[in-house]
Amino acid sequence: MSSRIHHAGLAQKVMSGADAAAMIHHGDNVGFSGFTGAGYPKDVPRALAGRIKAAHDRGEEFRIGVWTGASTAPELDGALAEVDGISTRVPYQSDPVTRAKINSGDIDYVDIHLSHLNQYVEHGFMGRLDFAVVEVTAITPGGRLVPSASVGCNRTYLDKADKIILEVNAWQPAEIEGVHDIWRNETIPNRHPVPILHPGDRIGTPYFEIDTSKVVAVVETDAPDRNSPFKPIDDTSRAIASHFIDFLKHEVKKGRLPKKLLPLQSGVGNIANAVLDGLHTSPWAGKGLGAYTEVLQDGMLDLIDDGTFSVASCTALSLSPEGVERFNRDVVDYLDKVVMRPQSISNHPEVVRRLGVISCNGLIEADLYGNVNSTHVIGSRIQNGIGGSADFTHHGYLTTFVTPSTAKGGALSCIVPMVSHVDHTEHDVMVMITEQGLADLRGLAPRKRAQQIIDHCAHPDFRPLLQDYFDRACAGAWGQQTPHLLGEAFSFHQRFMETGSMSSR
Amino acid sequence: MSSRIHHAGLAQKVMSGADAAAMIHHGDNVGFSGFTGAGYPKDVPRALAGRIKAAHDRGEEFRIGVWTGASTAPELDGALAEVDGISTRVPYQSDPVTRAKINSGDIDYVDIHLSHLNQYVEHGFMGRLDFAVVEVTAITPGGRLVPSASVGCNRTYLDKADKIILEVNAWQPAEIEGVHDIWRNETIPNRHPVPILHPGDRIGTPYFEIDTSKVVAVVETDAPDRNSPFKPIDDTSRAIASHFIDFLKHEVKKGRLPKKLLPLQSGVGNIANAVLDGLHTSPWAGKGLGAYTEVLQDGMLDLIDDGTFSVASCTALSLSPEGVERFNRDVVDYLDKVVMRPQSISNHPEVVRRLGVISCNGLIEADLYGNVNSTHVIGSRIQNGIGGSADFTHHGYLTTFVTPSTAKGGALSCIVPMVSHVDHTEHDVMVMITEQGLADLRGLAPRKRAQQIIDHCAHPDFRPLLQDYFDRACAGAWGQQTPHLLGEAFSFHQRFMETGSMSSR
Repeated sequence: MSSRIHHAGLAQKVMSGADAAAMIHHGDNVGFSGFTGAGYPKDVPRALAGRIKAAHDRGEEFRIGVWTGASTAPELDGALAEVDGISTRVPYQSDPVTRAKINSGDIDYVDIHLSHLNQYVEHGFMGRLDFAVVEVTAITPGGRLVPSASVGCNRTYLDKADKIILEVNAWQPAEIEGVHDIWRNETIPNRHPVPILHPGDRIGTPYFEIDTSKVVAVVETDAPDRNSPFKPIDDTSRAIASHFIDFLKHEVKKGRLPKKLLPLQSGVGNIANAVLDGLHTSPWAGKGLGAYTEVLQDGMLDLIDDGTFSVASCTALSLSPEGVERFNRDVVDYLDKVVMRPQSISNHPEVVRRLGVISCNGLIEADLYGNVNSTHVIGSRIQNGIGGSADFTHHGYLTTFVTPSTAKGGALSCIVPMVSHVDHTEHDVMVMITEQGLADLRGLAPRKRAQQIIDHCAHPDFRPLLQDYFDRACAGAWGQQTPHLLGEAFSFHQRFMETGSMSSR
Repeated sequence: MSSRIHHAGLAQKVMSGADAAAMIHHGDNVGFSGFTGAGYPKDVPRALAGRIKAAHDRGEEFRIGVWTGASTAPELDGALAEVDGISTRVPYQSDPVTRAKINSGDIDYVDIHLSHLNQYVEHGFMGRLDFAVVEVTAITPGGRLVPSASVGCNRTYLDKADKIILEVNAWQPAEIEGVHDIWRNETIPNRHPVPILHPGDRIGTPYFEIDTSKVVAVVETDAPDRNSPFKPIDDTSRAIASHFIDFLKHEVKKGRLPKKLLPLQSGVGNIANAVLDGLHTSPWAGKGLGAYTEVLQDGMLDLIDDGTFSVASCTALSLSPEGVERFNRDVVDYLDKVVMRPQSISNHPEVVRRLGVISCNGLIEADLYGNVNSTHVIGSRIQNGIGGSADFTHHGYLTTFVTPSTAKGGALSCIVPMVSHVDHTEHDVMVMITEQGLADLRGLAPRKRAQQIIDHCAHPDFRPLLQDYFDRACAGAWGQQTPHLLGEAFSFHQRFMETGSMSSR
């Protein structure tokens, strides 16, 4: 018996990834673990991809529905997309091969709020779930599962799937046991309040409790997660972070934020990391802050270590290779400072609203009136997905978006007359920040928002074009609430498609 | 002392509406009561409008910020807009004069979620609140206020305003005392769960508790609310209602809804009323349903009276003249079946999500991919506002939108290639219903949603045009996740502006 599999019955189910994958068939829906490249199964998906390729080579159909927590890794999304093995992808992805197949129309992609996923699956809105394929760190003598480096939607998949395949990954530190907090509400219509009053509150147990009779295979692995390195912080990110932190100080001064702030949520990526770095290198004048967020990032480890943060709640690790080494080495020290929850709880509207989260997310483009596109390039082509951004933006106390003012070497303006896809409406976006400055949109009517965004957020190269559009829209639009010239609302995008640049020069 | 003013100190503050209005000055922000034409002050706003007109006639500036619960009536919105007395209007309106002045650019309109308003005001995001002008039904000997026919944002306005003007309206039935449930959470960061587990749960007291020393005037009135008659139910509304109810039955059969359903929310208007009428005239096969909704409508009285509904939670009445007569006459019988709450609670994301509300709202236009425009005509011109529609749509268990497939005698298609304004994103909209049929969008990728909407929701006159756009977008778009041709995404709208019809004939 492996040192990680302490349940006698389940130990007898140990087999190879290939044997386990052989149970999965064309048309099945499979709920895989995995969130931001942490805690996804390493072996079964690759074996399954091989099996799918062989079937295709024989001229047989073989495609499955791939449901996860969020993004995964080349070994899962990449391998299955590469062999055209995915019919439907739910609820988020960031994989280059998967993305290409979605944008060529070969994969159906259902891009839904991460906090909604649990309800969709639990109540059968997505159809039947045939398999859960879930990485865990260990199996206890009683058959309980110690989760891995992400929780994601695993509890729901384990509950709802007809059959369960477990991967027990010896690479994950055994000492992670205790960091997770798994809670299950009553089912509707008997749901109770989620009893979280502070980011660090523990309300459940550190284990998945499952029906062990559903387990058809246990596969042993010893393989690292995909952990992407951060780029060094550049001047643009540093400028954005500085505007963000100055704004927090301003809000404290105005009495609209306590000195200890409110729990922070921070999207994935380099700008978010620059913000966290800013709070660490110019220490915040107060200790005991907290994070109620989706993923644990490198910058948060620094802030926990220096005492700025007392706790961080999340659903997954999203660390650099150095960050994960540090976390895994010192995991025992982090057990009382990190809580890893199901994504339905880490992103729960109820808790986000109650705690008054300060949200900070990136975007693809924003428009003059504060609408935000987080998902689509030029309106049609998916980038990643909405993820949890709306879970925090619709419910936060103070909702901010951060972005460089331009992209692609200055060819794209991230501020456009009208966004080509809307993921966050004007009603939800309070503050817009670029390296140029910050626009506080709270309480402003649309025309006033537009002037703030042009003056403070747009890049000087695009400011005259935006001002020209706005002025002409104010003169010629069908109404003055949200002046638009529908015939040229996408002129920036069309110019980009025609010339490779949104600029008119 | 009036029979409605039982507090000695406040009885001494009784004065005319004109004397009370004389205390309000240019630049003040005023929080008025009023929600869907119920419970707004009848006298002070008109007197104030007279005072503003006189000031303008003398060449003096005089404009105020007008904050309410939601829409009001000609005596408030109309009177103040008519004399150009409104600088900023928050958070919702449906008044023709106000709407015209917003669309001409004379009034700044901040259109925000009704569930967010309380937080915006409480934490000073909107600036200082100078006055609360609130209609009540009575004042108790201890100085507590019996609310009127709406609660709206009154508690917050009474708490936050520097000064309070009360209107005591003898037209409202004194027996309404007890129907309201006023609850106050701790302030952030000490907020607790909202302890509502069932739509009828009472968690507070039936009174506003105020600092009586802030009351500067009490005005006695005896005047009816604005109560708009419903149009007789037409065939289109009946067809939409029938699709909606058939769908509920289908979901019960599939085991995705309990036989007693889940709490219903229903937008204002004739289609919503047709749905309620449908549940009454072909009785639902089960009793004890409930409503967790924004406003109490005529159809709900029928459903309460026939036992289909055991309870309805709301923040305001929105009844016809006959409906209000019936409610006021039998109010004692409704006291244990109707709960009227602050709009921050009637629309609270936490409760809507926990209870699993089935939402049903109208719209201006929807697009192929399920994005919904609830607010703007041809992208720029405001109609009413988002109101509470997103409070229920973002958090509901089952979220539906209902609309005739065409408007303006067939000149406008309510299904367009791309909506000209987005209030509800593709991520939140589950079911689309027109008189043509129903599209269940749950779990569908965007291209599949589009075909469902064309086939089941679009009017036959516009179906070929929509199919043509969709087919060419699938052939020529920049990506296949959400195929759009940005150069002609608004061609329907442009044709309407040029020819008066979206049709190409």
